[in-house]
Amino acid sequence: MPVRKCLGFFACLLMFAAAAGEMARPVYTPAGELVRPSGYREWIFVGANYGMGYNPADAAAPAKEKVFHTIYIQPEAYRAFASTGKFPDKTMLVMENRKAGTTASINRQGMFEDGYAGIEVALKDEQRFPEKWAYFVFFGAGGKELATARAMPRDRCWSCHNQHGAVDNVFVQFYPVLREARSNPTAQQ
Amino acid sequence: MPVRKCLGFFACLLMFAAAAGEMARPVYTPAGELVRPSGYREWIFVGANYGMGYNPADAAAPAKEKVFHTIYIQPEAYRAFASTGKFPDKTMLVMENRKAGTTASINRQGMFEDGYAGIEVALKDEQRFPEKWAYFVFFGAGGKELATARAMPRDRCWSCHNQHGAVDNVFVQFYPVLREARSNPTAQQ
Repeated sequence: MPVRKCLGFFACLLMFAAAAGEMARPVYTPAGELVRPSGYREWIFVGANYGMGYNPADAAAPAKEKVFHTIYIQPEAYRAFASTGKFPDKTMLVMENRKAGTTASINRQGMFEDGYAGIEVALKDEQRFPEKWAYFVFFGAGGKELATARAMPRDRCWSCHNQHGAVDNVFVQFYPVLREARSNPTAQQ
Repeated sequence: MPVRKCLGFFACLLMFAAAAGEMARPVYTPAGELVRPSGYREWIFVGANYGMGYNPADAAAPAKEKVFHTIYIQPEAYRAFASTGKFPDKTMLVMENRKAGTTASINRQGMFEDGYAGIEVALKDEQRFPEKWAYFVFFGAGGKELATARAMPRDRCWSCHNQHGAVDNVFVQFYPVLREARSNPTAQQ
C-alpha cells in the first residue's frame, strides 16, 4: 500500500477508534517513560478540589499558592467502574492543576479556575508495574511542561494512595462523580 | 480528488459522525417547562469554582454554605465554539452544585467536592426565546430536586449574563477550558 494511502487509512482508523470509544492506552518511550496523555479534556470529569493538602504543616501556605485540581478518567474506565466497582487495567486518572482566580470580572468572593499549571497522572498497568499503579508528574522545575515523565518513586505517591485510597489506590472518597456512578450505575445524571 | 479517495474520505466522516453521536437537544413539556437534561456528566467539563459570588454583601456568608460549581457543555457545542468562537443554537451549559467536604479522610486543608446539591441550566434556543438564552434552576425549596423547570425571569439571570458574559451571554472568563480550546482549537489537551 502506498505510504500516503496507508497513513490516511491509519488516521481514519484512529479517528474511528476514538469516536467509537476505544479506551485511550498508555504510550511509553523506549526508555520506559510515559508519554503525556492527550485528549483527556474529552474524558469524564470525576471531581474538583481547591487548596487540598494532606500535610498539616502546609496549612499556613499563602492563598496565592493554592491551586484547583480537576480529575478526569477515560470514559470506558468510568463505565467499567460504575458497573463493576473495579478499575480496569490501563485506567488513567489525569489530575489537572490550575491557578485560582479571585476578583476578576464581576466576581467579589470565592475562587474560580484560571491558568493551566500542569498535569499529574495515575496509571494502572498490571503487566508493567509490580505494584499495579504508578504515578507521573508532567511538569518540572519552574512549572516547565514535560512531554514524557518517569514513574515517581514508590514512597512519593504509591504508598499514600495504597494506604488511603478508598478503592484500589484511587481516592474515590474525594471523587463524588465516581461514587455516585457506582452507587447507581444506570442513573443518567 | 479521485473518486475513490473522495468516497473514502466521506465514509470516514460518516463513520466518525455516527460514532460520535448527535448533540443533546432541549426537551420541553406541553406547558413549556424544560425537562432536566440527562447524561451531562458525560459532556465536556469546562471549569470549576468554589464559593463564588457577585454580591459583596454575601462575602460574610459562613464557609459551610459555600458550594462548588462544576460546569459542563455538550461535546458538539464545545467543538463548535473551539472552531468558530460561537455557541451554536441549542447549546446547553449545565452547572452542578456540590457541597464542600473539608477534613474527611486524610485531608487536612482545603476543600473537595462532596454531596450533590442540584443543577442549573443555561440554554440557547433562538426560536423559542426572544433574548436567545434562558436560565433554569432544577431545585426548589429545601433543595428539592425538580424534573422540570420554567425559565427564570429575565432580571434574575439573563440581564447579568448579557451584561457581563465575555462571549454571547456565557461567562467564558471563568471557564478556562473553553478559553483554551478557542485559542488553540487543534490542541489535544
